[in-house]
Amino acid sequence: MALTAEIIGVGTELLLGNTVNTDARDISEGLSALGINVYFHTVVGDNPERLKSAVDIAKSRSDIIITTGGLGPTYDDLTKQTLAQCFGKPLIYNDEIAQGIRDYFASRGFSNMTENNMQQAMLPEGCVIFRNGNGTAPGCGFEAEGKHVLMLPGPPSECKGMFDECAVPYLKRLTDDGEIFSHNIHIFGRGESDVEDQLRPMMKRLENPTLAPYAGNGEVKLRLTARAATREEAETLMAPVLKELREELGDVVYGVDVNTLEETVIGLLKEAGKTLATAESCTGGLISKRLTDISGASAAYMGGVIAYSNDAKRLFLNVNGDVLENEGAVSDPVARQMAAGARAKLGTDLALGVTGIAGPGSDGTEKPVGLVYIALGTPEAMYCKELTLGNSRARNRLMSANYALDMVRRYLTGLPV
Amino acid sequence: MALTAEIIGVGTELLLGNTVNTDARDISEGLSALGINVYFHTVVGDNPERLKSAVDIAKSRSDIIITTGGLGPTYDDLTKQTLAQCFGKPLIYNDEIAQGIRDYFASRGFSNMTENNMQQAMLPEGCVIFRNGNGTAPGCGFEAEGKHVLMLPGPPSECKGMFDECAVPYLKRLTDDGEIFSHNIHIFGRGESDVEDQLRPMMKRLENPTLAPYAGNGEVKLRLTARAATREEAETLMAPVLKELREELGDVVYGVDVNTLEETVIGLLKEAGKTLATAESCTGGLISKRLTDISGASAAYMGGVIAYSNDAKRLFLNVNGDVLENEGAVSDPVARQMAAGARAKLGTDLALGVTGIAGPGSDGTEKPVGLVYIALGTPEAMYCKELTLGNSRARNRLMSANYALDMVRRYLTGLPV
Repeated sequence: MALTAEIIGVGTELLLGNTVNTDARDISEGLSALGINVYFHTVVGDNPERLKSAVDIAKSRSDIIITTGGLGPTYDDLTKQTLAQCFGKPLIYNDEIAQGIRDYFASRGFSNMTENNMQQAMLPEGCVIFRNGNGTAPGCGFEAEGKHVLMLPGPPSECKGMFDECAVPYLKRLTDDGEIFSHNIHIFGRGESDVEDQLRPMMKRLENPTLAPYAGNGEVKLRLTARAATREEAETLMAPVLKELREELGDVVYGVDVNTLEETVIGLLKEAGKTLATAESCTGGLISKRLTDISGASAAYMGGVIAYSNDAKRLFLNVNGDVLENEGAVSDPVARQMAAGARAKLGTDLALGVTGIAGPGSDGTEKPVGLVYIALGTPEAMYCKELTLGNSRARNRLMSANYALDMVRRYLTGLPV
Repeated sequence: MALTAEIIGVGTELLLGNTVNTDARDISEGLSALGINVYFHTVVGDNPERLKSAVDIAKSRSDIIITTGGLGPTYDDLTKQTLAQCFGKPLIYNDEIAQGIRDYFASRGFSNMTENNMQQAMLPEGCVIFRNGNGTAPGCGFEAEGKHVLMLPGPPSECKGMFDECAVPYLKRLTDDGEIFSHNIHIFGRGESDVEDQLRPMMKRLENPTLAPYAGNGEVKLRLTARAATREEAETLMAPVLKELREELGDVVYGVDVNTLEETVIGLLKEAGKTLATAESCTGGLISKRLTDISGASAAYMGGVIAYSNDAKRLFLNVNGDVLENEGAVSDPVARQMAAGARAKLGTDLALGVTGIAGPGSDGTEKPVGLVYIALGTPEAMYCKELTLGNSRARNRLMSANYALDMVRRYLTGLPV
């Protein structure tokens, strides 16, 4: 019988709509991967009575209670006191943690550590201490009244870091039927429901490992999760399924256990020792922004042009004025000339040219909103793809950038562009 | 006595960590502005029993229950059925809504409307219908057992649209001491705690209107909220405070009731009939991406260059090779030459040049990570600002883009750049 968990976010800023509860999302994703069912999220403010009522409700319906937030040094940080009280545990001063907090301040050259910081060194009796790699407030886990209680800090980087490093090992010990291992399969070029339809027989058939689809940013991610005594055993269980998935899905799989399409592209470029330039019209810098989000992109990405106006297309990229006039800025030949111009100017191996009507307004021609041309110039050939997208400006820009990056990925891995 | 509200998000995808609960954030922010206290958020999956238990708990502790999600046509969309059952209301078929759904499909040229879409036309008896401006599923509001129940769709754009257009007017009628009117004051160039310190005496003194700060994306927003019988009365209450705020804060206020810095800049450019170009190194397209997020940007933003490599700086922008060599790519003269080059090449009124070390790695010189130069070329003068930011690549890029946009804003409104 799988364990059930509930996440209680503590913080008035969440109830004021000042911040969004990404901690609950991050922890939920992690718990799913562990095979733990999450049935409820709750958010309460920095109010001990309402927090106590939320904990009492959670005790009545969940095996594992995970709180986020309210572990800091200020007077409204009351999660530890309240949880300790709910479960009849005294708080004990921990010398080692206190010293760690003093060291943290000293190492950063802060001389202004006030004594209320020492409140963070008070921890429930008999708990497992979770060290904070990204801040001062420690978290902890303990068992009481047949429930498992875990407390994590609120700031997202501290919460996620501590969850991965401390809470996951703690929770793995609770599951008596082995550990959980997983792989993420990243897909671009297919819709979620489409992928789901195709894989439904496989998903139904599989018991260990299991397979679950996730969608976001115009991409699809499959998570393959195995439960086994060792990593080797898990890999043995997953290997034939990974192979089957690759056969089923083919070359829309752009990576396993990777981060993003842009990180994949930068990695492939560096691996091949090739350079890339961009010439963007409708995406207006979204492709270059995403490429340069990746630290170290400068080794492979040389730069490019935001050719938003026709003048910019002519002056920076030598797009032919007659072609602009006759074919229109949103056309196959203009995309090709943009890519060729960027490639010639910067002397790169590859260059992208993107022109389209992002919308919501038309470009004053008969061409529909959502029409996009993406050209990829390479030493061997110039490729050009025509897309017919929808009416949403944001989505048209996102998908155009995705398709452009994917064309580079396909070229560099020897697939048909 | 202020009313209290609870938001119940319905959707297994939230519990799997597949999506983040931005609906709760958006609605909470809106409820705060209405003077309604939010004490709890809850999230449950697409499971009628657990949804019923969450509604029962909400009934026992909140005056207003707002659900998000589970209004669609598929079998796991069960919010309406469950809520109607919890409050003893039958669901009634609504002809007009049914016709609206048929029209929606027809207008999009979809011939594949299945009959389960008609489930969306079933609504609780006696409810106020909330029309969906961004999708097919209608929402609704009703009163029962002394509670107010509102149901909104899950997709963020549908949820926020319906909340603003339908739920806010519905909720305003529930507050017996007048309506709520507000203004948002947008600030760039000051930190949140800094602004809060300065305004604390004012915030403490004010009763109607009230003032609350919000921070995000490197900016600060103040919300001024008045309760009054009419808009005129509210404006009379708010006018002296707005004046006082402008005097207190000065020219860091970049707008009242505006959207973003980039939208403000595009608006100011169009108003002045001026054009802008960009030359970006460390921001790598973030500025152009943000400008072209704004629909209609092409009237004022001509394009520019992503001068990520030194070659791109020389070839597209005529940055002097000796200066690059002697001063380094991250330097005041290079920023100025980048702006000058973009401005000359595209013949725009204004041009930005941005060069810096985004990090986390250094550029191989002695210069620190976080050092950024931003130049603004104008017909009268060339301005250049030096920033010393921190170690986070993402934040350095964000703040550099913010400062660059703000320099354009300051120039166009006659302020010292």
